[in-house]
Amino acid sequence: MKLNIALLAGDGIGPEVIDQAVKVSDAIAEKFNHEINWKPALTGAAAIDAVGEPYPDETHDICMASDAVLFGAIGHPRFDNDPSAKVRPEQGLLKMRKKLGLFANVRPTFTFPSLLDKSPLKRERIEGTDLVFLRELTGGIYFGEKGRRDEGETAFDNCVYTRAEVQRLAKKGFELAMTRDKKLCCVDKANVLETSRLWRETVQAMEKDYPEVEVSYEFVDAVAMRLVQWPNSYDVLITENLFGDILTDEASVISGSMGLMPSASLGSDIGLFEPIHGSYPQATGLNIANPMATVLSAAMMFENFGLQEEGKAIRDAVNSALEQGIVTEDLSENGKSYGTSEVGDWLAKNI
Amino acid sequence: MKLNIALLAGDGIGPEVIDQAVKVSDAIAEKFNHEINWKPALTGAAAIDAVGEPYPDETHDICMASDAVLFGAIGHPRFDNDPSAKVRPEQGLLKMRKKLGLFANVRPTFTFPSLLDKSPLKRERIEGTDLVFLRELTGGIYFGEKGRRDEGETAFDNCVYTRAEVQRLAKKGFELAMTRDKKLCCVDKANVLETSRLWRETVQAMEKDYPEVEVSYEFVDAVAMRLVQWPNSYDVLITENLFGDILTDEASVISGSMGLMPSASLGSDIGLFEPIHGSYPQATGLNIANPMATVLSAAMMFENFGLQEEGKAIRDAVNSALEQGIVTEDLSENGKSYGTSEVGDWLAKNI
Ligand SMILES: CC(C)[C@H](C(=O)O)[C@@H](O)C(=O)O
Ligand SMILES: CC(C)[C@H](C(=O)O)[C@@H](O)C(=O)O
Repeated sequence: MKLNIALLAGDGIGPEVIDQAVKVSDAIAEKFNHEINWKPALTGAAAIDAVGEPYPDETHDICMASDAVLFGAIGHPRFDNDPSAKVRPEQGLLKMRKKLGLFANVRPTFTFPSLLDKSPLKRERIEGTDLVFLRELTGGIYFGEKGRRDEGETAFDNCVYTRAEVQRLAKKGFELAMTRDKKLCCVDKANVLETSRLWRETVQAMEKDYPEVEVSYEFVDAVAMRLVQWPNSYDVLITENLFGDILTDEASVISGSMGLMPSASLGSDIGLFEPIHGSYPQATGLNIANPMATVLSAAMMFENFGLQEEGKAIRDAVNSALEQGIVTEDLSENGKSYGTSEVGDWLAKNI
Repeated sequence: MKLNIALLAGDGIGPEVIDQAVKVSDAIAEKFNHEINWKPALTGAAAIDAVGEPYPDETHDICMASDAVLFGAIGHPRFDNDPSAKVRPEQGLLKMRKKLGLFANVRPTFTFPSLLDKSPLKRERIEGTDLVFLRELTGGIYFGEKGRRDEGETAFDNCVYTRAEVQRLAKKGFELAMTRDKKLCCVDKANVLETSRLWRETVQAMEKDYPEVEVSYEFVDAVAMRLVQWPNSYDVLITENLFGDILTDEASVISGSMGLMPSASLGSDIGLFEPIHGSYPQATGLNIANPMATVLSAAMMFENFGLQEEGKAIRDAVNSALEQGIVTEDLSENGKSYGTSEVGDWLAKNI
């Protein structure tokens, strides 16, 4: 295959972890006879500094001309405690999601046998956890009208969903469930929110098209609890944008493998693949960031092109590295650890 | 003291657990020479069945004529999967909060030494956890305009906050922090939401009035993670209504003592006190529900009247019961457990 991949390294540790995913992907290309054309482009605080815009038009053009986007991380603390900042890295992320039509954020949470004891949860609570969140990514309160009234004394954010938006996300959820344990949980707050009632009634109406899928409906507060109690009771969960933001981050911790969790954002023809972790500014340039989540995001990218073997080759390399202790300091057991780029080199060599 | 207490037992196990709190409170009244006048009133599904309204005017009148409200639980599964139900028990709860001006929901999460191993989290993660959430309870997306457009195809919920609403909640947060470890965490999503930016800027402006309080600002998704990782790193957390709903439920699980967690809702002169657990319909009438959260809610009620000793007497009784294994089946260690009313009797006798 000939693949054009937009490469959006972003901020903080983004560039370092992206470098490793590139190495590993290049090794895959060589082994499986693909040709990858990397197209680097600016995003996040890095793009604000360079051109005053977190998702510049040139970057969008590069993405649109590519087959997929590999993304690092964005965000810089200098923007966080400044409520008055006019341009923020996060705006770039939201604009990108919207303009690329990435309405479904796929976030798996699974365990690695060798890492079970890293979890804050007891082993018996997480063993066997293998769930996937499908988070709606281009609607809801993130994108509704927002602003101030009364000379700034009143602020508002509008949460809006259409039935069509719910349907296309739920459809992906049902389809994904069919390839897995055939359980789908619709997470909402239908006892309070009208948007949630629309979600629930829309999903209910779709149940008949997937008679094999066992569908449950749970309130977001109950899921926030059960995720910590019995994460392994879930299979596929679908939810709206803001609930998904909160719950996917919560879920990422319970597996004990947060630094290893990849994600995909899908919708249009062009998928975006990124680690779930943030830009981790304190670690920037120190060659200590764990590149595995980004490397596994590249695996999801190959799999999304239908290249299952390529994805598996990456996953196998990551598993071997974990078993053999070729890990960054966050996962080190015995004091021995490797740098970001050493882990990347090892993975590339072991493809 | 002469106390008029409105008694809203509600649905499911509500009446059973409320009965025990009444027994224990009456024992307190006898021991400390108070006079409690209980005023039962209808709420929830029970009120819908009786008078077609989950928070009838007569109930509101009884609450307004009381010094405090002791509340059980509301909610019935027959309403949950019916998005078209016109009257819901939850509406009664929201109406009550609004009409009684209960803008601050106080939810402590703490550990009981004898229950540490009940937690899904490892002991070393939760030891020493003692945090309090102050959740804003009468604003935000719960109470903003909501509805449908486009012949029902589009749903919306509006989230609105005024600076004054944030200030009064934050003030309680700062004051509470001053009586504790002097750490305050403002939880928001200021990188996306305008209401969150109003929260953050309002709290930032109040910092100078409480120079001793160390204030931090964290995004809601990050808090959802850190609560599971290091719950004992928090002291007082303030947040808006919906984030509070999700995070307080998450926090309640990590302590391992969910069935024991009380709460208070404050604002006007009349406080409301209730267990954090729900109406647990499956257990209704079985005399198995754990009454301790409701009993501890009564302790918070006495403390809120300035009756610290009375509160402490209840807490001591609960601690003794836990140590001596006078517990319902959810907490039983050795197969031996007591009924809801037996636990209540024991507590009342040991005041
Ligand atoms: C950075 C932020 C805007 C973003 C979000 O809330 O969507 C992040 O938390 C995420 O989950 O990708
Ligand atoms: C029942 C429901 C409306 C309520 C809420 O969301 O506030 C409950 O979850 C709570 O936290 O008291």
